[in-house]
Amino acid sequence: MKYGARNNLKAKVKSVQKGDIMSLIHFEVLVPGEMSSVITTESVADLDLKPGDEVKLVIKAIHVLPVKE
Amino acid sequence: MKYGARNNLKAKVKSVQKGDIMSLIHFEVLVPGEMSSVITTESVADLDLKPGDEVKLVIKAIHVLPVKE
Amino acid sequence: MKYGARNNLKAKVKSVQKGDIMSLIHFEVLVPGEMSSVITTESVADLDLKPGDEVKLVIKAIHVLPVKE
Amino acid sequence: MKYGARNNLKAKVKSVQKGDIMSLIHFEVLVPGEMSSVITTESVADLDLKPGDEVKLVIKAIHVLPVKE
Amino acid sequence: MKYGARNNLKAKVKSVQKGDIMSLIHFEVLVPGEMSSVITTESVADLDLKPGDEVKLVIKAIHVLPVKE
Amino acid sequence: MKYGARNNLKAKVKSVQKGDIMSLIHFEVLVPGEMSSVITTESVADLDLKPGDEVKLVIKAIHVLPVKE
Repeated sequence: MKYGARNNLKAKVKSVQKGDIMSLIHFEVLVPGEMSSVITTESVADLDLKPGDEVKLVIKAIHVLPVKE
Repeated sequence: MKYGARNNLKAKVKSVQKGDIMSLIHFEVLVPGEMSSVITTESVADLDLKPGDEVKLVIKAIHVLPVKE
Repeated sequence: MKYGARNNLKAKVKSVQKGDIMSLIHFEVLVPGEMSSVITTESVADLDLKPGDEVKLVIKAIHVLPVKE
Repeated sequence: MKYGARNNLKAKVKSVQKGDIMSLIHFEVLVPGEMSSVITTESVADLDLKPGDEVKLVIKAIHVLPVKE
Repeated sequence: MKYGARNNLKAKVKSVQKGDIMSLIHFEVLVPGEMSSVITTESVADLDLKPGDEVKLVIKAIHVLPVKE
Repeated sequence: MKYGARNNLKAKVKSVQKGDIMSLIHFEVLVPGEMSSVITTESVADLDLKPGDEVKLVIKAIHVLPVKE
């Protein structure tokens, strides 16, 4: 099983809040590992990103796709 | 500093690959912690998601926003 | 009328489920046609994608924009 | 194998254009079927969407995730 | 012409930078107007958002869809 | 504070509509300024985008991230 996405994290469901149309699920990440990001080369320059820099990786919950294998 | 996003992970830049328009950055996540996902309530039923279930969280790199504080 | 997006499919509304803030709409696609995807070149290598391969194209409903012309 | 996404279409790779960081892949959809969209209930009212209406479904290629099972 | 999206801004193209696969376009917004955001109700509480508050609206360029009418 | 995103607009909250899981927030943009978009080079050709052209920039509300600094 292979996904055309750079990030896939093993996680365990902690809670499920069901709404009328959308639901919010909280997970505990089991294996931290690595993440990848694609941004414009202009933004890399703005942020002056280089190896060793510490950042926050911000991800809207709507962009996280749970998959059950 | 507060973001209107459920997920923000502390991470360290491992590498930066600059392209003509877009760049790809690899990070090492420093503190694993938790993640949240929003999906349709229909999808929750399809996946039959409940506390304790193990899943893969798939995220396209394009949806990961690095922030330098 | 031209959109800066690779995919646009003719479809007919089958049902509308209205929620408090978000609504879910089901469509029947009228003309199948083609789809395009942009992923990292790293992911193309991981998936070993080449002409003739069969895949599933997964799209979160939140990323589908209906337009009435 | 189950995905927390409303849309998944069987498709065959037609061409792969590799770029420095990102690549563009064209697919032929094998089984048309159905699509779902989530939009705000405000937008449903603006569009006045109801069963039987014809629309275009616009999707940026960046939001299409190919998966090889 | 109606879109199932809360935000649409009139803008004029300032520059186009063509890359191998992706291109970056800079626009000048002609009429400022209003913007809408959808976030989790949990995030609204975290941010303690209420009328009159000043915020930054951050949008990745990849999520901006130009349309020519 | 620097974000890996091309667009960030100063805005003031006009209203907050809280739903069960998701909430919709309306903002007044305080400083119009500029916007950037990333699309495929194929789409630039389709739209025949060049400096001076007028377009609509369409953005789903779900892709707008409010940040309080």
